[in-house]
Amino acid sequence: MADYKVVIVGATGAVGQEILQVLAERNFPVGELKLCATARSAGKEIFFKGKSYTVEETTPASFDGMDIALFAGGAASKEFGPLAAEKGVVVIDNSSHFRLDPQVPLVVPEVNPEDVKEHRGIIANPNCSTIIMVVPLKAIYDAAGIKRVVVSTYQAVSGAGAEGITELTEHTRAVLDGKEVIPAKFQYQIAFNLIPHIDVFQEMDYTKEEWKMVKETRKILHDDTVGITATTVRVPVYRSHSESINVETKRKITVDEAKKVLADFPGVVVEDDPANKKYPMPLFTSEKDDVFVGRIRQDNSLDNALNMWVVADQLRKGAATNAVQIAELVIKYGCLGKR
Amino acid sequence: MADYKVVIVGATGAVGQEILQVLAERNFPVGELKLCATARSAGKEIFFKGKSYTVEETTPASFDGMDIALFAGGAASKEFGPLAAEKGVVVIDNSSHFRLDPQVPLVVPEVNPEDVKEHRGIIANPNCSTIIMVVPLKAIYDAAGIKRVVVSTYQAVSGAGAEGITELTEHTRAVLDGKEVIPAKFQYQIAFNLIPHIDVFQEMDYTKEEWKMVKETRKILHDDTVGITATTVRVPVYRSHSESINVETKRKITVDEAKKVLADFPGVVVEDDPANKKYPMPLFTSEKDDVFVGRIRQDNSLDNALNMWVVADQLRKGAATNAVQIAELVIKYGCLGKR
Repeated sequence: MADYKVVIVGATGAVGQEILQVLAERNFPVGELKLCATARSAGKEIFFKGKSYTVEETTPASFDGMDIALFAGGAASKEFGPLAAEKGVVVIDNSSHFRLDPQVPLVVPEVNPEDVKEHRGIIANPNCSTIIMVVPLKAIYDAAGIKRVVVSTYQAVSGAGAEGITELTEHTRAVLDGKEVIPAKFQYQIAFNLIPHIDVFQEMDYTKEEWKMVKETRKILHDDTVGITATTVRVPVYRSHSESINVETKRKITVDEAKKVLADFPGVVVEDDPANKKYPMPLFTSEKDDVFVGRIRQDNSLDNALNMWVVADQLRKGAATNAVQIAELVIKYGCLGKR
Repeated sequence: MADYKVVIVGATGAVGQEILQVLAERNFPVGELKLCATARSAGKEIFFKGKSYTVEETTPASFDGMDIALFAGGAASKEFGPLAAEKGVVVIDNSSHFRLDPQVPLVVPEVNPEDVKEHRGIIANPNCSTIIMVVPLKAIYDAAGIKRVVVSTYQAVSGAGAEGITELTEHTRAVLDGKEVIPAKFQYQIAFNLIPHIDVFQEMDYTKEEWKMVKETRKILHDDTVGITATTVRVPVYRSHSESINVETKRKITVDEAKKVLADFPGVVVEDDPANKKYPMPLFTSEKDDVFVGRIRQDNSLDNALNMWVVADQLRKGAATNAVQIAELVIKYGCLGKR
């Protein structure tokens, strides 16, 4: 198996660090590795598989001769993504910038792997909450069709990056010590609080995060007839997003059937044994790659509907793992860029 | 205005303490006051309006000659509630024991005040999550009818009593100090975690808390045709429950109309100005008596439906305030017990 020249843009952030971890764990065939970030982070030393790498400032030259660029997200994607693609590098981008571009495949490997083949240099990695929802939804979709989804999220602070993690700790200590809480990354105190506001407000007073869950899910499923309405909420949890999902199916699916198709679906772990207090919780799904599904119930108010409680590490499956899986598909399908 | 002889059973717990606070704030016409609790708490001194009271162990004699008994909840309700009612005391009970008894009115004063008149000695105070949901639902119900509700809750630890509060602090400190976390009141670590399990599991794998939201809401609305499906989740917040509510109405109601009927409804405060980051949050609704509603949006997946984000202090409106309001109705309607 050949080794590939990989550049990571945004290597020092929460998602960048996770990408390195996942590349190592999955034994991704990394030949040359280049770690890039903003000027502020240039010069930092980062270890990968026991070897030290110096972080470079991202420049157009960063992509010369590389095979795969994993962009952790942020402003660099817009600035350097198309340029890297022009140089024949396959860009796997974690920002929201290209996701709804009809020329750019938006891929969750368990759901629409073949879309990778359509890329023109850039492949978009979906929003974390979207990925976590669409994996179990696809299992249900294939078995019974989906008419409508009502989802409420419980999103961890690390979805706002490394600063989100620091701020939860700082706010928590301040509250316990009776000191003043100063919000910076979040709109308000996040410790012992909930903030129903993630990303900016857009049309119909939904946030961009809520619209992402609607529009990206439809694009990944290739089905604009699926109704989705979302309420996204930040919660004082460090890691792993949770989602309460109500799914109205086209055809009736029993709880037993749903459990079976979910358990059989790649990347899903069914954790659903109430008698033994088994259900997914963010504390126990963190640093794992699967999407955990529990509390699977027949909707008592509607015949063709189910309730589910879905939890996954949004830095892993919601970002880094999904991106590395896309890179693996690029190699598997032999659709690297032409240089 | 006459003064009334009031006994509080469970006066030392989280809800009991809140009842005393609310009685004082609302200037409830308390003549004689008796504070009762289990033997373990007997002898404690509690202040009410600057006067000290000694907590007594609850016995049948505790109710002799009293007018109104406010039961904070727990086992005492079953043991002493009917006995107190037989003695001519009007029992306002915060436990779940009598709520679905067809002989017992289940009352939210803004929603079904007249039901108080039907009491035969016991009036039940609904579950906290139910009260918080049914107040804004009634405004929508009156304006447009309700076909179906999908609700996901974010419930504070004080819903599990004073021990829940202590445990969140203990778990939080243990995590920050790198010490072992030992769950006692909750099933698992609650700090920086979510637990989708409140009360015991029952039929169809719903919890008793989830069924309460279904059955109690229907009883309060006097309408068993309203579909309700609930997922209830404990979150690391000290106080105030939050609920993400999707309401499918019988007739179309616009967001503007919904905001108007909600703002006009007693006990509801509309806090919905996304541009200025105004939406309800548990941190800022605690120790308030109203139900706060925000993030009111047309459901983008269904024409006759709305999304709302509802937050209220579950120890106040979800328990103590509602109970004291019922007591006020008993006085207003002149339906004290016959001794």
